[in-house]
Amino acid sequence: MSLLELARRRRTVRKFKRDAFPMEKLIKCVEVAKEAPSGINKQPWHFVLVNDPSKKREIRNACEEKEKELHSRVKGELKEWMERENITWKKEFLEEVPYLVMVFSDTRAPYSRESTWVAVGYFLLALEEEGLATVTYTPPPSRDIAKEVNAPPYYRLETILPVGYPASKGRKKERKRVEEVMSINTF
Amino acid sequence: MSLLELARRRRTVRKFKRDAFPMEKLIKCVEVAKEAPSGINKQPWHFVLVNDPSKKREIRNACEEKEKELHSRVKGELKEWMERENITWKKEFLEEVPYLVMVFSDTRAPYSRESTWVAVGYFLLALEEEGLATVTYTPPPSRDIAKEVNAPPYYRLETILPVGYPASKGRKKERKRVEEVMSINTF
Repeated sequence: MSLLELARRRRTVRKFKRDAFPMEKLIKCVEVAKEAPSGINKQPWHFVLVNDPSKKREIRNACEEKEKELHSRVKGELKEWMERENITWKKEFLEEVPYLVMVFSDTRAPYSRESTWVAVGYFLLALEEEGLATVTYTPPPSRDIAKEVNAPPYYRLETILPVGYPASKGRKKERKRVEEVMSINTF
Repeated sequence: MSLLELARRRRTVRKFKRDAFPMEKLIKCVEVAKEAPSGINKQPWHFVLVNDPSKKREIRNACEEKEKELHSRVKGELKEWMERENITWKKEFLEEVPYLVMVFSDTRAPYSRESTWVAVGYFLLALEEEGLATVTYTPPPSRDIAKEVNAPPYYRLETILPVGYPASKGRKKERKRVEEVMSINTF
């Protein structure tokens, strides 16, 4: 399958089957992601794979705690979008999936965030190739969540990817046409 | 070719042939990149493809101006790395390649930087599939460079990707082993 087909097929999923899958599939995705380039080749990423049920519950609780605060403050277009998409402070997917993949960036490295998000891009495509689905969940900034997996203080939690098989067929959200996001020689 | 093979084959290149290539190849890469997920599906990225020689020269000059300032301040590990890799304020590659791809993020959108870097990850893999090479060059923060292509003030220049065929064979820099960047249930 070409990269274009893979990228087009990939869509965000927020409801997952509880069906287990072999950890080897995720390790293969990390093998892909860790090939990404990074500032002075520091490879400032760290992936924590979480399959322990009580750990998943604790992470969910820590996230929901912060989500409640966030949802009470959120406004404007983001609030409208959340209401339309039925996105609340509840994050069942953090507990109901076989695996959570917590992605950290080492803030001591130059361009650590940019580099780590490039690796996340690689990882998302790799999941798709494995037939697995996720949502790129960005938890509210908080040390409490990172502490659940004993992350050192200089590691920043960038995203938590709940990974599983999709529970529904669903449609990928529309993308703009290429002419709308690209121009030649001037913006 | 599997994604793992593609990701492993891809390496950063800083010396390019002047040989032209069809713009269609780059458009195909944008087609891949624009399939990336983004905060509330805002698709906050914009790609400017630059092949006009005088425009490339102006962008190079604007970048080198800022690089001179940066290089006079830089210290520690980054400075050592630059010396070892023979990286100076000079950015010939910004003028000598057939195309520059300037990638912007729309700062008005939520998670615009994270989303745009995921799209950059997609784009880098797409270039590799097309047999093209680049370096993920992050210019010093400056409105002057963005102004060269008339970017609106709320767009942030994230990276300039000089794209061409590699001028030398070279070796990919070593990556850590998967065990070094991954752990199970705890950091």
